[in-house]
Amino acid sequence: MVDRDAVKKILGTQSIELPSWAFGNSGTRFKVFAQQGVPRDPYEKIADAARVHAHTGAAHKVALHIPWDNVDSFTDLGKAAADAGIELGTVNANVFQDDDYMLGSVTNPDPRIRAKAIDHLLACVDVMDQTGSRDLKLWFSDGTNYPGQDNIRARQDRLSEALHKVYDRLTGDQRIVLEYKLFEPAFYTMDVPDWGTSFAHCLQLGERAKVCVDTGHHAPGTNIEFIVAFLMRAGKLGAFDFNSRFYADDDLIVGAADPFQLFRILFEVVTAGGLDADSEIAFMLDQCHNIEPKIPGQIRSVMNVQEATAKALLVDTDALTVAQNAGDVLGANAVLMDAYNTDVRGLLGDLREEQGLDRDPIAAYHRSGYAEKIAAERIGGHQAGWGA
Amino acid sequence: MVDRDAVKKILGTQSIELPSWAFGNSGTRFKVFAQQGVPRDPYEKIADAARVHAHTGAAHKVALHIPWDNVDSFTDLGKAAADAGIELGTVNANVFQDDDYMLGSVTNPDPRIRAKAIDHLLACVDVMDQTGSRDLKLWFSDGTNYPGQDNIRARQDRLSEALHKVYDRLTGDQRIVLEYKLFEPAFYTMDVPDWGTSFAHCLQLGERAKVCVDTGHHAPGTNIEFIVAFLMRAGKLGAFDFNSRFYADDDLIVGAADPFQLFRILFEVVTAGGLDADSEIAFMLDQCHNIEPKIPGQIRSVMNVQEATAKALLVDTDALTVAQNAGDVLGANAVLMDAYNTDVRGLLGDLREEQGLDRDPIAAYHRSGYAEKIAAERIGGHQAGWGA
Amino acid sequence: MVDRDAVKKILGTQSIELPSWAFGNSGTRFKVFAQQGVPRDPYEKIADAARVHAHTGAAHKVALHIPWDNVDSFTDLGKAAADAGIELGTVNANVFQDDDYMLGSVTNPDPRIRAKAIDHLLACVDVMDQTGSRDLKLWFSDGTNYPGQDNIRARQDRLSEALHKVYDRLTGDQRIVLEYKLFEPAFYTMDVPDWGTSFAHCLQLGERAKVCVDTGHHAPGTNIEFIVAFLMRAGKLGAFDFNSRFYADDDLIVGAADPFQLFRILFEVVTAGGLDADSEIAFMLDQCHNIEPKIPGQIRSVMNVQEATAKALLVDTDALTVAQNAGDVLGANAVLMDAYNTDVRGLLGDLREEQGLDRDPIAAYHRSGYAEKIAAERIGGHQAGWGA
Amino acid sequence: MVDRDAVKKILGTQSIELPSWAFGNSGTRFKVFAQQGVPRDPYEKIADAARVHAHTGAAHKVALHIPWDNVDSFTDLGKAAADAGIELGTVNANVFQDDDYMLGSVTNPDPRIRAKAIDHLLACVDVMDQTGSRDLKLWFSDGTNYPGQDNIRARQDRLSEALHKVYDRLTGDQRIVLEYKLFEPAFYTMDVPDWGTSFAHCLQLGERAKVCVDTGHHAPGTNIEFIVAFLMRAGKLGAFDFNSRFYADDDLIVGAADPFQLFRILFEVVTAGGLDADSEIAFMLDQCHNIEPKIPGQIRSVMNVQEATAKALLVDTDALTVAQNAGDVLGANAVLMDAYNTDVRGLLGDLREEQGLDRDPIAAYHRSGYAEKIAAERIGGHQAGWGA
Repeated sequence: MVDRDAVKKILGTQSIELPSWAFGNSGTRFKVFAQQGVPRDPYEKIADAARVHAHTGAAHKVALHIPWDNVDSFTDLGKAAADAGIELGTVNANVFQDDDYMLGSVTNPDPRIRAKAIDHLLACVDVMDQTGSRDLKLWFSDGTNYPGQDNIRARQDRLSEALHKVYDRLTGDQRIVLEYKLFEPAFYTMDVPDWGTSFAHCLQLGERAKVCVDTGHHAPGTNIEFIVAFLMRAGKLGAFDFNSRFYADDDLIVGAADPFQLFRILFEVVTAGGLDADSEIAFMLDQCHNIEPKIPGQIRSVMNVQEATAKALLVDTDALTVAQNAGDVLGANAVLMDAYNTDVRGLLGDLREEQGLDRDPIAAYHRSGYAEKIAAERIGGHQAGWGA
Repeated sequence: MVDRDAVKKILGTQSIELPSWAFGNSGTRFKVFAQQGVPRDPYEKIADAARVHAHTGAAHKVALHIPWDNVDSFTDLGKAAADAGIELGTVNANVFQDDDYMLGSVTNPDPRIRAKAIDHLLACVDVMDQTGSRDLKLWFSDGTNYPGQDNIRARQDRLSEALHKVYDRLTGDQRIVLEYKLFEPAFYTMDVPDWGTSFAHCLQLGERAKVCVDTGHHAPGTNIEFIVAFLMRAGKLGAFDFNSRFYADDDLIVGAADPFQLFRILFEVVTAGGLDADSEIAFMLDQCHNIEPKIPGQIRSVMNVQEATAKALLVDTDALTVAQNAGDVLGANAVLMDAYNTDVRGLLGDLREEQGLDRDPIAAYHRSGYAEKIAAERIGGHQAGWGA
Repeated sequence: MVDRDAVKKILGTQSIELPSWAFGNSGTRFKVFAQQGVPRDPYEKIADAARVHAHTGAAHKVALHIPWDNVDSFTDLGKAAADAGIELGTVNANVFQDDDYMLGSVTNPDPRIRAKAIDHLLACVDVMDQTGSRDLKLWFSDGTNYPGQDNIRARQDRLSEALHKVYDRLTGDQRIVLEYKLFEPAFYTMDVPDWGTSFAHCLQLGERAKVCVDTGHHAPGTNIEFIVAFLMRAGKLGAFDFNSRFYADDDLIVGAADPFQLFRILFEVVTAGGLDADSEIAFMLDQCHNIEPKIPGQIRSVMNVQEATAKALLVDTDALTVAQNAGDVLGANAVLMDAYNTDVRGLLGDLREEQGLDRDPIAAYHRSGYAEKIAAERIGGHQAGWGA
Repeated sequence: MVDRDAVKKILGTQSIELPSWAFGNSGTRFKVFAQQGVPRDPYEKIADAARVHAHTGAAHKVALHIPWDNVDSFTDLGKAAADAGIELGTVNANVFQDDDYMLGSVTNPDPRIRAKAIDHLLACVDVMDQTGSRDLKLWFSDGTNYPGQDNIRARQDRLSEALHKVYDRLTGDQRIVLEYKLFEPAFYTMDVPDWGTSFAHCLQLGERAKVCVDTGHHAPGTNIEFIVAFLMRAGKLGAFDFNSRFYADDDLIVGAADPFQLFRILFEVVTAGGLDADSEIAFMLDQCHNIEPKIPGQIRSVMNVQEATAKALLVDTDALTVAQNAGDVLGANAVLMDAYNTDVRGLLGDLREEQGLDRDPIAAYHRSGYAEKIAAERIGGHQAGWGA
């Protein structure tokens, strides 16, 4: 039997990291639709992130994206975050928007450009030193569009060299989390296309290099929870970038496209100790609110992760193991589905109430007047987006 | 036996329409990398398109995109094209970049926005009246990102109403060609996601409405040549948007990702009469040269279509039919492969020579100094892109 | 507000048709694992199907597969079904297991084989005359494995001719429901690969020809509920073959792989009147219980459809329409998700109790001793499978 | 400049291993169509394999599948092969067709069944000791069909234990080559679904464990040549199972579905030294000739690999490197395509002539009368298939 109070207690400790860029404008190559009240600088992004935390109690950190979130003083930015009740989290490097990077950054055939990219990555570690961030998230858009365009193996050599340079720069508990992606923006090869590639490089780097699983970065039909289970067994799962997708890297709200998949992923996380006190897995959102308002989009995302986690925690693992070991296919599946089919919204409402929050974060946000306030105040200036 | 002279003669009549926007900058949501010498207005685009025709002899038309290619006088633009040796072709409507269209254009729940979108489509027919274009190409980015966001059936009703209004406005030999696309920019539903949807609407509209097959707009594993064969049998194939893809709508150079597929598609076209003198099928390119130079990118694309067509024409259809009717699986396949495995570059070189062109269009372009000339001349102004 | 009693009432009228072959052995090309107690003839299959109905109250019909379910007297078989409390339903034709059909049945290049296949289809209508079945389900394994193997258009001509011959043979309220499938067993082309192909043929046949949607027969990323909505709007949705899949045509228990997708499909069915009293849509299961016991596998499948239907009925469509028309993306999605996140098992338990059934059909089945009984009794003879 | 004589010389050393099971009957779960003249025992399979070698000069080895190819004396079988001019090659283990393996073999929750499976694997090494085979090919059908059915991590533990037991049994230059597969026959998880999983286990095992890449075992959109390049760089590519596919694991003739992909794969092999004299990569076919005759199907397959290899060898790698390093996207692609577009059939014809073979192996086979001979002689007995 599962103890609902124990479940609630664990849920009360869960922490989901928000991406600062989720509050800026985003879109597709066809169009970026601007929204009202969008932040114009990193401080306003942090204010919005803090708002998500205020309503959910579960979003203690906000990840930065460099150079988008460059400020004069990261100490000041960290102080602003602390004042708003949150912390600065993962630092995300960006080596995909300079004109120099058209044919790659750290894997570019031109050594000058590679050096420039590595310099940026090292500068990101400098930022981490100032913000106290543990993780440097590396995603490389590097790849090729046409067969023959570049040498696949040579690019791996260059990638390996760059990763080692950055890894060697880490100090203390700093880590590299290396993201993989099947395609986009490169359309023939990506230099880190799958978990195996990331895993192999992390193995060579050492203990402080881990794989980052972005739930939208896989080929159709890929079983993501298998990858999660495998990486956890190998001690190499470092972070999640949560979002959801029907087709490619749609970057929709996590849990919106396939809530059952999210549950299965979190079930593997939970049963392998990923929510334990000593777990080092970072649970981040990485999404694009192209057409929906961004703050409630983030609130809903946090809630979706919470609901999936609650269901994962409600699985009667004793009964499950018995059925599994007996080869009872339908019985084992039924144990899992019993948890999934449970309506956990009441349980999470109770938790929020205990935390002094409204049972319904979305309704509370709408009542708060914050949306109207930022729409009125944030006039003029340059709205944040993927270019800044 | 296949008569190579007859093949060459047919190849000499082939015409591939270029998209004006291929000469402007394009990219992904992550970054648009600017290139040197990019046109700053529709006249410069036409100059570049004419250059492609000058080297290939096979690209007599250039398609326009409205409003990107709006000019004060389409008569003047048509004259500029004629002076450069080409013609204005298909008019492509754009109802996806106005802020109003965030939740759809002709299928938007808001009737005001639907009316605005229809007005634009009708204005495109006005342009056709001026340019003498036969085809109005309709691609709708309309769709939804989240389950429940809108009513799928109601959106079909709205789509149908808009299509009828535009169809009723056509005169003479004007046609609608209705494109479909699996996903992007919408990520849950597209209102015209597949050929079946386009086909059903075209059937209801009438004779002058046809399906446009964009080779990059299908789900993984879709057999495109089957769709082509089916639509030709039904008299409903109106146009191609040629490009190629490994993953999603990559918009790479046609034939770059899967030249065998392009050959199979053109084999269905050829054998169903799609290259006959009375064929009304428009063969267009629709690509993005994100990282490669645009003019040679278009030249290469035209050559790839020519090479695939040449191979398709070389299939010994008599021998093929004999093998097919005998149930000789390997024999029939071998007849097809025999044509595909033929090196047709000499044949096409001969054709070009007969046409007074260089055997090697790419080399001739590079020798011409045109690239250096436009890079030097086109300084200042605003480079064309997807936003204009 | 949704009226839960009204929902329960509609659920009480729902009827899900079972496939007789689900009770026989099935497997993959690698191995068919035999199970204990598997039926050895159509009468035993009907007994098992009746058992599913006895526990669920929602499976009134069993579909036949000819020749697998050929018996001396269909009158007797129908009587046996009636005695067991169920009816004979859809007749499924089989033109894929005779050695003659290696290169196709109705689309075979050999006219003798085409005639043989058509004869079988007509014989299936004879069976329908005897069983009183309304629907002839046609699935053609026909297709090709290699490019060039046969003429795609010629095969469509042959298909069309065969369909017309069968359609002309129908009388009364008899219907053809034409299934489509992306691939398998043919690996290059299928002659009816997608809904568009089935739809186009059904349009040409007439009112009594409808499309059958097998939920496992689509390309990755296909939005099945869109197809359902489109076909219902066009009056051309005839039947479902329910099952679920992670990869290809996995034929798993419906709702097992993506319960949210099943809910979305049923939401489109419900809102378009597919559960109304005059609806002619057949809701069939078509699955393979390769490794799980078959009768509880079928019971679970029926329950999964019921649960998804219950959730679909619980959607507050008034609130949904308001949010949709207001362009409230998150609000509209939330209305849908509110229903999906509801635990409907209690509601269905209540319904069963009202119907005099056990609240938990699976538990009741296990208590019944039926599994042990058939394992003990069905010794000797030849277990039913896909070959009989 | 590429030296065509040097290319021909390398081609003359190429060796492609045939699968004994390709000569037996195969099919889909829907139907296995029997063919005339199919072998009834391993000796007849070897005779057929030798025939393929006799016409191509490039198929020196035949792989065995245990227990399908069990014989009283492998010494005698090896002698028969030698007499026919070929050798016995890779030993393929089979732990997927015993009734015990319904829920897995080496990963089964039942320790008795795991022990049985391991015993079989060890027995396969015994066979290798007798045949002198270097490679034990391991493909596990193990996996689960339903979420929750078994513990993903526990199954990895069991897999690892089994692999170590077998690895420890190897002697001399014996190797394990571990195959991966996305899905089928398991439909939710496969225990070795992707190259990363195989790679990770091989790393843990040691030097004599390598990854086997089956070209049909990937998710849609997977870039196989990237995997090949990555594994060769890591020294972990052990073997290929060549075949081709449009959808899932179609097992069609290699090069039949996407000849350009095969060329790209072989280009990575060639440039990383995979055809060098000291290369340990095994180039195997693994296909199903479901509807085409098997011996010419194998001949065509060997020829397709040869043609793709010839094109790969014709790439002007000096020019390619220059273009790549200059960032000349179109130029680099053109160098690659120049080789691909070359008709290499004449070159291979010349090679065969030098080897004393007919220029056209297919025509020579058809003239030989072998097909008629085996159809006449192999009457009675039990045709070989996947069950034996």
